[in-house]
Amino acid sequence: MRDVAVIGVGMTKWGELWEKSLRDIYVETALLAMKDAGVDKLDSIYIGCMSSGLFVGQEHLASMLTDYLGQAPVPATRVESACVSGGLAVRLGYIEVASGMSDMVLVSGIEKMTDVSGNEATYALGTAADQEYEGYQGITFPGLYSLIARAHMHKYGTTREQLAMVAVKNHKNGSKNPLAQFPFEVTVDTVLNSVMVADPLRILDCSPITDGAAAAVICSLETAKKLNKPIIKIIGTGHATDSIQLAQRRDLTWLEATYLAGKQAYEMAGKKPEDMDFAEVHDCFTIAEICVTEALGFTEKGKGGKIVESGETAIGGRIPVNPSGGLKSKGHPVGATGVAQVVEIVKQLRGEAGERQVKDAKIGIAQNMGGSGGSTVCHIFERE
Amino acid sequence: MRDVAVIGVGMTKWGELWEKSLRDIYVETALLAMKDAGVDKLDSIYIGCMSSGLFVGQEHLASMLTDYLGQAPVPATRVESACVSGGLAVRLGYIEVASGMSDMVLVSGIEKMTDVSGNEATYALGTAADQEYEGYQGITFPGLYSLIARAHMHKYGTTREQLAMVAVKNHKNGSKNPLAQFPFEVTVDTVLNSVMVADPLRILDCSPITDGAAAAVICSLETAKKLNKPIIKIIGTGHATDSIQLAQRRDLTWLEATYLAGKQAYEMAGKKPEDMDFAEVHDCFTIAEICVTEALGFTEKGKGGKIVESGETAIGGRIPVNPSGGLKSKGHPVGATGVAQVVEIVKQLRGEAGERQVKDAKIGIAQNMGGSGGSTVCHIFERE
Repeated sequence: MRDVAVIGVGMTKWGELWEKSLRDIYVETALLAMKDAGVDKLDSIYIGCMSSGLFVGQEHLASMLTDYLGQAPVPATRVESACVSGGLAVRLGYIEVASGMSDMVLVSGIEKMTDVSGNEATYALGTAADQEYEGYQGITFPGLYSLIARAHMHKYGTTREQLAMVAVKNHKNGSKNPLAQFPFEVTVDTVLNSVMVADPLRILDCSPITDGAAAAVICSLETAKKLNKPIIKIIGTGHATDSIQLAQRRDLTWLEATYLAGKQAYEMAGKKPEDMDFAEVHDCFTIAEICVTEALGFTEKGKGGKIVESGETAIGGRIPVNPSGGLKSKGHPVGATGVAQVVEIVKQLRGEAGERQVKDAKIGIAQNMGGSGGSTVCHIFERE
Repeated sequence: MRDVAVIGVGMTKWGELWEKSLRDIYVETALLAMKDAGVDKLDSIYIGCMSSGLFVGQEHLASMLTDYLGQAPVPATRVESACVSGGLAVRLGYIEVASGMSDMVLVSGIEKMTDVSGNEATYALGTAADQEYEGYQGITFPGLYSLIARAHMHKYGTTREQLAMVAVKNHKNGSKNPLAQFPFEVTVDTVLNSVMVADPLRILDCSPITDGAAAAVICSLETAKKLNKPIIKIIGTGHATDSIQLAQRRDLTWLEATYLAGKQAYEMAGKKPEDMDFAEVHDCFTIAEICVTEALGFTEKGKGGKIVESGETAIGGRIPVNPSGGLKSKGHPVGATGVAQVVEIVKQLRGEAGERQVKDAKIGIAQNMGGSGGSTVCHIFERE
């Protein structure tokens, strides 16, 4: 298999984009990535999207968006695996380029979530859980993650304040990200006094409902060199599944699919957790980031709360986590999130991240997760 | 890229399977394919499904089904491109094996369509059309294909009877397929007197609403030889997109994406249309098969009606089309259809197709299509 590089990334301001349709948002974002890469011809397109059927009543998305992008008849594929749809689009694009089948591939993700009511959005997101064994009992995603949070607090003594500190850190980072949906800082007190969603998780522990897209152009390393672009290599990929039902897991606090996907990516890259200069991870809820930092090996089991409290995961700390602001502050258009992580990593590795730049960043890992952890995709990137 | 072979296929009886859930149908079918291949360990799984979100309120399908199949933590990916979702699952599996990334991959497709009302199913299927420019005007799929049919009749003199003959031929073939949803013969008269759906298309011109799944195990040619299995090679793959809006096409009667995907597959295989011993094609409506036979080069533009009338596409004819019974008689669980074509082709090439066997079949082509032709995937298979 050939070496693969990212040569262009694109993302627009995320939020409640009521004045733009799904196709508008997609085309604007994809064109930014293609402009950044300096290419106007593609061999193939992958689009991550969780539920355009339920959110906007549109399937057959890949062909529709490829046509609007002016790229038909290029082969285009939509992939879905709940909130890991974007990460999967990156992985499949990687495989297609690495295989030699295609040379220039657009990997992208999108979700338009605010054209439906809050209840409808909650239902649509709930389809990432096991509907027959979880959804029909009435549980929603904040409920599922609240069970994880309570288990973590019970087992490891993780505190309510430590959960809040994840939100405080990520909003601080996001306040320096002009594309973030909520680019403002919050305090521990604000989080602790925000409205309760599912005890112990409050509204400021939850990532928001967002409209947005993200895109990246990837190609063979050889082509990237010919094009004379700053080269960011994809040196590791990992993908693993787990039961999407919490009730089937051995340990509520342990994200086995994240552990395995991370392990695969580290092994392929020949790197260890301590070689990472920073990470973009799936903080759909504050507790999620805590569990992910443990599963990726940035700390021991049970100590995810402590490393956020100690400042180790802040920019300037031992292993900065979510310099972009994460899903928490940047927003979480579910199908786009995994690709937006790549956008941030490429900006960081190029030294283009402005006020939120991680100093001397050379290697970064992206961890994107579906549902309550039923699927995870990890990628490791290195600046050449 | 490595050579790839199909070593196992599985399919169960299709129909209105009210006593089985989506996960039951999937697991039963996948296990059949794995048993046929003689493998119980997989490296990766691809699942084609168009709209489990709208049909059964469940996304995150790949992880859920992989877990139920007992294969978690194996990487699993759901792909969607309307009715070409199954064909795409085959293509992505092919790329993953050909790349060397994985060796043993399950490619599969499923749709559970009868748990909702007819109106809801019509809405869900309508999301394969451009909702903003077609759906919101009230047009449904029979309506879109009726426009294609009228244009073909007007431009080429295709007759109402020729449309009916597609149904007659496919039901005749399907009557010999024990897994078909409607395994009975029909006459031209029955078709012409069946209830009108969208003039000129009547109910017997339309493929049905179906619950069903199909699966195949693919691996490297090298591994297939070691396992001492009958070897069916995938020698060509093609994938192309087009506008999903009929209004944007230059010619309503011409399926450009099918033409291009077919061309890619033929070129990769080093074969021509006349080298094909038979074809499984996407006859979602009778007019679709007529247009597809032209786009795949089995006849000249405009003569698709004539070759069904002359018997050239019957079993025993010059180029048998849809020996399985096609979508028309076998049924059309949309995400499963593209994989079921592979099941039929493998059975034919192994000489296991019973009463519907195409004599001395050595090479077959599968053409799977999304929406009104906005995406097409073609694969060519050869018996070694």
